[in-house]
Amino acid sequence: MSTTRPSATEPETAPEEVERLLARAAAAAPSWGRFTPAARADTLTAVADALDARTGELVPPAAAETGYTTGRLTGEIKRTTVQLRMFADRVRSGAYLDVTIDRADPEFVLGPRPELRRHQVPIGPVVVFAAGNFPFAFSVAGTDTASALAAGCPVILKTHPGHPRTSAATAAIVHEALAEAGAPEGVFAMITGRQAGVTVLRDARISAAAFTGSVRGGRALFDIAAARPTPIPFYGELGSINPVVVTEEALAERAEEIASGFVASFTLGTGQFCTKPGVLLLPRDADTAQTVEVIARAAGEVAAAPMLSADIATGYGYRLAEITAAAGTDVLVKGAVSTDDGGVPQVSPSLVRVASVAQLRAAAAVLLEECFGPAALVVPYDTEEEVEDLLADLDGALTVSIHTSREASGAPGGDKYRRLVELAQQRAGRVVFNAWPTGVAVTHAQNHGGPYPAATSAHTSVGTGAVWRFLRPVVFQDAPDDLLPPALRESNPLRVPRTIDGQSERLPATATES
Amino acid sequence: MSTTRPSATEPETAPEEVERLLARAAAAAPSWGRFTPAARADTLTAVADALDARTGELVPPAAAETGYTTGRLTGEIKRTTVQLRMFADRVRSGAYLDVTIDRADPEFVLGPRPELRRHQVPIGPVVVFAAGNFPFAFSVAGTDTASALAAGCPVILKTHPGHPRTSAATAAIVHEALAEAGAPEGVFAMITGRQAGVTVLRDARISAAAFTGSVRGGRALFDIAAARPTPIPFYGELGSINPVVVTEEALAERAEEIASGFVASFTLGTGQFCTKPGVLLLPRDADTAQTVEVIARAAGEVAAAPMLSADIATGYGYRLAEITAAAGTDVLVKGAVSTDDGGVPQVSPSLVRVASVAQLRAAAAVLLEECFGPAALVVPYDTEEEVEDLLADLDGALTVSIHTSREASGAPGGDKYRRLVELAQQRAGRVVFNAWPTGVAVTHAQNHGGPYPAATSAHTSVGTGAVWRFLRPVVFQDAPDDLLPPALRESNPLRVPRTIDGQSERLPATATES
Repeated sequence: MSTTRPSATEPETAPEEVERLLARAAAAAPSWGRFTPAARADTLTAVADALDARTGELVPPAAAETGYTTGRLTGEIKRTTVQLRMFADRVRSGAYLDVTIDRADPEFVLGPRPELRRHQVPIGPVVVFAAGNFPFAFSVAGTDTASALAAGCPVILKTHPGHPRTSAATAAIVHEALAEAGAPEGVFAMITGRQAGVTVLRDARISAAAFTGSVRGGRALFDIAAARPTPIPFYGELGSINPVVVTEEALAERAEEIASGFVASFTLGTGQFCTKPGVLLLPRDADTAQTVEVIARAAGEVAAAPMLSADIATGYGYRLAEITAAAGTDVLVKGAVSTDDGGVPQVSPSLVRVASVAQLRAAAAVLLEECFGPAALVVPYDTEEEVEDLLADLDGALTVSIHTSREASGAPGGDKYRRLVELAQQRAGRVVFNAWPTGVAVTHAQNHGGPYPAATSAHTSVGTGAVWRFLRPVVFQDAPDDLLPPALRESNPLRVPRTIDGQSERLPATATES
Repeated sequence: MSTTRPSATEPETAPEEVERLLARAAAAAPSWGRFTPAARADTLTAVADALDARTGELVPPAAAETGYTTGRLTGEIKRTTVQLRMFADRVRSGAYLDVTIDRADPEFVLGPRPELRRHQVPIGPVVVFAAGNFPFAFSVAGTDTASALAAGCPVILKTHPGHPRTSAATAAIVHEALAEAGAPEGVFAMITGRQAGVTVLRDARISAAAFTGSVRGGRALFDIAAARPTPIPFYGELGSINPVVVTEEALAERAEEIASGFVASFTLGTGQFCTKPGVLLLPRDADTAQTVEVIARAAGEVAAAPMLSADIATGYGYRLAEITAAAGTDVLVKGAVSTDDGGVPQVSPSLVRVASVAQLRAAAAVLLEECFGPAALVVPYDTEEEVEDLLADLDGALTVSIHTSREASGAPGGDKYRRLVELAQQRAGRVVFNAWPTGVAVTHAQNHGGPYPAATSAHTSVGTGAVWRFLRPVVFQDAPDDLLPPALRESNPLRVPRTIDGQSERLPATATES
């Protein structure tokens, strides 16, 4: 497909317009916050319905702007609407309010204790910085927007410059659906341009920020958020090396499967996934050379595919040159770069062997930093301790993956890998077994985050837990019942789940509305 | 009581010793994190038992160093041990692990979904900066230390220079109790001196910080935490004006009670409470002058009492001079300052009237900033809208208190005060009715925090919720059961509460261990 890619600079939303949108978001916050859980859930569902119904309008601009296939883009829109519906369900159930009541206790050991009733309230208007590599799931109506709206916060969305037409088309659908569903006018706004984004991030009316992107860009914005007169939380997902450890048993059992799985995972979406496995650690034994050869052959057979933009391809080229210049590296597959007549850079995968874990660690600043694109390292290790020590010193990662034996029916050697698993847990937000890190399920238990720089907070940005980023607790002490917010009234008119004196309240069956 | 107060500078813990304590804390983190909930709860309980048993050793140095009465100090130690036991109970129940399991779903709408099992893990070693005004409850073994230990994090405690002997005595008891209970050696350490505190805060082995104190000091430390190569969360509780709104009905009903309650609250502990009510807003009517007179008379009758240190008394004096110099202010009670032969500054309360809400707002930078000490403002208001607009623009506060009619049996006038309550909720972490903000119950539902500068995060620092500050989620994907942490195993050997596929699991009755 021949396309013309936009440049990475977009027109800036005019300062007066930015001011107007900020004022509107601030004005909308109280009324959007007062929506009942059911009404807010209905509104989110309306947005999901509209995006589903109009998927056909969204795919062509996205395909042209990202180079992704129609299949990938259709699937990503589906993921986006599933995500919106999941947040809608979460909101409808009232669980996100975390209603907690402690009855008054005149006999409390420290003296008479008042009645306390706590719920969660929206933190206030949020600025969301869209990602470039997921033009739907982490962009205009993606997980950050969905979770902030679910929490009751207006959103000002700063577009990613890589897909302006896709962003505008999505925003138009979101706007229309919100208006039809009766949401206040300022609940959602879109801005473009770097300066407009910074202006909004600095504005006193903004209460939180969410971001998915590079370490450099994310850290610059994080620093701005932290330096404000009133600092605000900056929920960033920045970068991750996502190491994969293959145990001896796993390699003995399924070397070919591991080789092909690894190649499929690190080249998925032309390697432009934050969960791309960047380093494969293989036990060094008689067959390692052969396994590496299988991986190299598979990588060499992957066709060139478009990258998101010329800028990203250029950055990828620099990183790759840096990596291959490091001592102890050996290029097994040298990816080709070509440019089609529309100016789109097409890249085929690269595979680099590092001689040893010691060499990998010696050049950690180059080799253990994220490389955004279809390249990966293969590193033979000599002892398990070596891998454990490597993990212990690793920067925070979104994922660590471990391949163990599948045959031992859930018993991969007792305590042998316990330290490895504990270290993986210390350095990552998700520990994956016998699978690949690309693909992040949208569920309650999901955690997409990890120690810095994987994330700048302890919160997940995917799954229902993402809503907590945009809420804060407020407790009412001895309040007259009719002055309480509805979720906290004794009669529980919203029928939300409650914890009373430390115990979950049993609601009658009719209370289950989700 | 004649005492000699220490100067506000302490000897610095030597750099080599700081390094040794950091290394020890880092080394202790994994094993302390692996303690079962029950074992960790027992350890916390042992610390509480030791502090209860040795209260008699702690009161005399604390009385000498703070000027607080024996009654106050004994009560505060009790509060500290109740707090430790509450965290122990919370840990023992396993609720803090928030175990969440999503079963694999081969039919999931977005494609086959793996099994995900999430729990919370300790964030890592924590530096706690002790407060000066609560030498036990917010100091060495206070809420920050207790909640970090409960979460499984080693603590390095930076003492407050105001009570060095009290700190050392408390730390000795904590050390001994932890060692006897079998906690690893580096789980708790105490350091002294400003530079040592900053060194620890900057150290890569530290994963979070907690602080209670002034806006200036807290913000300086917040900025250091945010500027680290790896930024860490800084949980600060900085300052709050804690406004109190008295409605017409309340004043008509119980003017005398409100007057005496206000004076008792703002002079409690010589006004050295972060929840001190700094501003009383009274409806202006025929009787207001008389009510103000009653308040002034009550304030004038409060005896001089010692402040925590000469430095604090000096700072208080400056703030008071600044306040009384503001336009529209009128000193109703001018507190006396005296110094006893031990050099302890004794202060009697001051009361300042501000002519109107407009005058209050005109000098907001002076009048609506916390004044640490026994002074308060009384401000007549002309309309409810005026009060609402004032609240809407207020800096974040720990509390907003509202006095309504008690007689109308919970119906204080329908919608009349709804906007006021909503604005209070927007600007504060706790909304108090018909009572005073001093006194923070230690319970599940409590929230001690609020928008900046009341707090630097959305988390409470008091009550069981405080433990969340020191945890982060990790999810296991398709893990072999015997490689899972015990809390996540299918058989639930720790018998912790679990949410499975979005529903609370019903545990058999024997599972309730708390």
